[in-house]
Amino acid sequence: MRAYDIIMKKRNNTELTKEEIQFLVNGYTGANKLEITQESRLVSKQAVKDEQMAAFLMATMFNGLSKDEIYHLTMAMAHSGEVLDLSPLRGVLSNIENSDQKNLGEKNYENLAPPQTVVDKHSTGGVGDKLTLLVAPIVAAAGVPVAKMSGAGLGHTGGTLDKLSSIPGFKTELNFDEFINIVNKIGLSIIGQTKDIAPADKKIYALRDTTATVDNIGLIAASIMSKKLASGADAFVLDVKVGSGAFMKSEEEAKKLAITMIEIAEQNGKKAKAILTNMDEPLGFSIGNSLEIIEVLEVLERKKEVKDIEILSLELSANMLFLAGKGDLESCRAQALESLTSKKAYKKFLAMVEAQGGSLNGGKINFGEAKNKIELHSKEEGYIQSINAEKIGTAAMVLGAGRAAKEDKIDYTAGIILNKKVGDYVSKGETLLTFHTNRGDLEEAERLSWLGIKIGTESPISNQLILGSL
Amino acid sequence: MRAYDIIMKKRNNTELTKEEIQFLVNGYTGANKLEITQESRLVSKQAVKDEQMAAFLMATMFNGLSKDEIYHLTMAMAHSGEVLDLSPLRGVLSNIENSDQKNLGEKNYENLAPPQTVVDKHSTGGVGDKLTLLVAPIVAAAGVPVAKMSGAGLGHTGGTLDKLSSIPGFKTELNFDEFINIVNKIGLSIIGQTKDIAPADKKIYALRDTTATVDNIGLIAASIMSKKLASGADAFVLDVKVGSGAFMKSEEEAKKLAITMIEIAEQNGKKAKAILTNMDEPLGFSIGNSLEIIEVLEVLERKKEVKDIEILSLELSANMLFLAGKGDLESCRAQALESLTSKKAYKKFLAMVEAQGGSLNGGKINFGEAKNKIELHSKEEGYIQSINAEKIGTAAMVLGAGRAAKEDKIDYTAGIILNKKVGDYVSKGETLLTFHTNRGDLEEAERLSWLGIKIGTESPISNQLILGSL
Repeated sequence: MRAYDIIMKKRNNTELTKEEIQFLVNGYTGANKLEITQESRLVSKQAVKDEQMAAFLMATMFNGLSKDEIYHLTMAMAHSGEVLDLSPLRGVLSNIENSDQKNLGEKNYENLAPPQTVVDKHSTGGVGDKLTLLVAPIVAAAGVPVAKMSGAGLGHTGGTLDKLSSIPGFKTELNFDEFINIVNKIGLSIIGQTKDIAPADKKIYALRDTTATVDNIGLIAASIMSKKLASGADAFVLDVKVGSGAFMKSEEEAKKLAITMIEIAEQNGKKAKAILTNMDEPLGFSIGNSLEIIEVLEVLERKKEVKDIEILSLELSANMLFLAGKGDLESCRAQALESLTSKKAYKKFLAMVEAQGGSLNGGKINFGEAKNKIELHSKEEGYIQSINAEKIGTAAMVLGAGRAAKEDKIDYTAGIILNKKVGDYVSKGETLLTFHTNRGDLEEAERLSWLGIKIGTESPISNQLILGSL
Repeated sequence: MRAYDIIMKKRNNTELTKEEIQFLVNGYTGANKLEITQESRLVSKQAVKDEQMAAFLMATMFNGLSKDEIYHLTMAMAHSGEVLDLSPLRGVLSNIENSDQKNLGEKNYENLAPPQTVVDKHSTGGVGDKLTLLVAPIVAAAGVPVAKMSGAGLGHTGGTLDKLSSIPGFKTELNFDEFINIVNKIGLSIIGQTKDIAPADKKIYALRDTTATVDNIGLIAASIMSKKLASGADAFVLDVKVGSGAFMKSEEEAKKLAITMIEIAEQNGKKAKAILTNMDEPLGFSIGNSLEIIEVLEVLERKKEVKDIEILSLELSANMLFLAGKGDLESCRAQALESLTSKKAYKKFLAMVEAQGGSLNGGKINFGEAKNKIELHSKEEGYIQSINAEKIGTAAMVLGAGRAAKEDKIDYTAGIILNKKVGDYVSKGETLLTFHTNRGDLEEAERLSWLGIKIGTESPISNQLILGSL
């Protein structure tokens, strides 16, 4: 088997076999496991080079991937590293009874039912997307353990992991046993994805990122699902974002991606549900790492109501509970709501912070603040017609909240607080948003913000938040 | 300017600008000259990586290149290294009068007219293609100096350079002054292409070779013409092969390639003529390096008539003389024929061998011979219907005559002598061909030969040798 012939086959739009895709992925990752067993004589010669993988990927942009090819690609990437065994979680209740409860800030273990299914959540990513930080404690507080591994954020603003890292002392790098122990004790842990989860995906994604071969549904689905499958869960709730701030600009594309991911899960004997959600304006009012954690805590503590993130978090949580076998969807919605309004989710979040080393001073987290807070005032009066998530996200990045390149360092306190959301009325001179920054390019952030916010005389038709579910 | 955006633009089938193509080629070659003059701040960051060039090339396989893009690509590659100045050749007659003639084996300088035009020849490559070795002395003997640079052969059998290297003592690596001096003295020199001729093409070609991005007319034309333009000639005769043993399998493709190359030459203010020639059966009777030189010498010495290579050599020579301004095509054909039949071309060839260090024992070259000569006898009687050039070429390679990979060493004495050509009658048991080999895989050579030779009861319609000219 030669990489050349596989590339040519894809170029000629002929379907690749499972073995060919495995050869490509294993040869590229360096392990080349397949060759060792089948043609041991050729092992050392058969590495697939960067340029060969790039040529294959570009041919794929034109000729696409069949359902089977996507599945084989996903599986080859999922098995390129460790595939986690989450079975220690499945006996969670019995373990808890034997565990040392003294060090824990959470007392409601009696609510935990023995989980039949380990459920994971994935979001295709948006601006101000702090939903995992709400969903995870809501679901955990409703009795389904959440063992969540997050990747580092590559988008405009930090990922879930960066947001958690803005909590002083919070450790996102735990070994697997520590991770499982915390989940077994308090029902919730969120850590960074280990390097050994789908390393082939990591390498291929980095290559796609420099060769203009990112935006293909099959490749995106395989990338997401390879990590999800390697992370060991039994079922997945997929938050597929649609809109100006999302990777999928149209509902049609988003639906295609959702179906593709669900098919991969099902071909693997696992369950998945996809929720298509709007990503035209940023989620919530805060964009930026510690700013978003603060907003999450305010919502969890019931000090503040933030409609969009509450609606979305509850729906995603309900679907996770549903997949975990906690009843029909209506009942699961009620459980999720109860988990939030009773502040059980809030307590669960604090328990996780404490278990992972975050410092809680009397139940409060002390975040630093950015030196400079600059308000942007409206030049006109009227209704906010739109707040372009991509533009505002980029503005937040420019202020220091995200990474333009992988090696960039995030300023956790930097970001943007919106004072207005789409549909709100604003008078002339009123504050539209506030920049939080220590070192950012204010001029560029302002330019982007003015580009991103549209004000008009008519009250706009409000965006539908949940576009559908599959 | 970023490689990513250029790749994406080609993926989206938008025409690239001259600057974008220059950026890609210069950035890939490492020099990145453009960036130094335009955005000096970014120079060190802007290298184009292997995988990015591969992605660009694969996008090109799908979306093609426009006429202007091909031109810009050719020029960028041509200027990636040295562009030779052949003006010392243009005053050839006056130099000759002052030159030391004692060391030369050739006395007919008075026939040389002061050349107006330096003409080069290129062949897209075929099996048994020894035409340069006939054309160069024919043209030189007719009074037009030939300063020929050849690339190393990457096909089934060696290139012109490998064939010449089979002559004991013959030096193919001369510096530019030595090269020009020999041309000015005897009117003919053939040397290896220096490393500095179109290095970008060399690097890009090697990449295409491993990424299944070779067979695109625009890329092939740009590759050939970049080297030709950098070699400094004013006009080009292009031998475009068509058929089973050629890269272009159909006349239509070959015509497209020819037109593309002529357009590049003309956009550059240079002249070009293309001759489409048949490459279904090997040219001549010999395949293999010293075997082909022996055949060339037999034809030049008029000891043997080999119809196909004589017809093609004379037509290519006539076109070179025509482009050099030696009269109308009919007159040029007569001059070429006279050059061959008078044995002036033979003497010119020997003079070149002597000038480049080859040993001539009383005007004869002593070639070694392969240890093993194995005849293949016909299993049936009838007319030879076809001799597949690709199969026979591969058989010759297997016997040691060519390189399967760049690093392989050629056995100069290895190859195949055909006893029969298409249309010949063969009786049962009669010799079809003879293998010459020291180390080859005889079984594989036999298998390929049987696959390559078709015998039938009807006399076949003979192949048209020259399919057209443009």
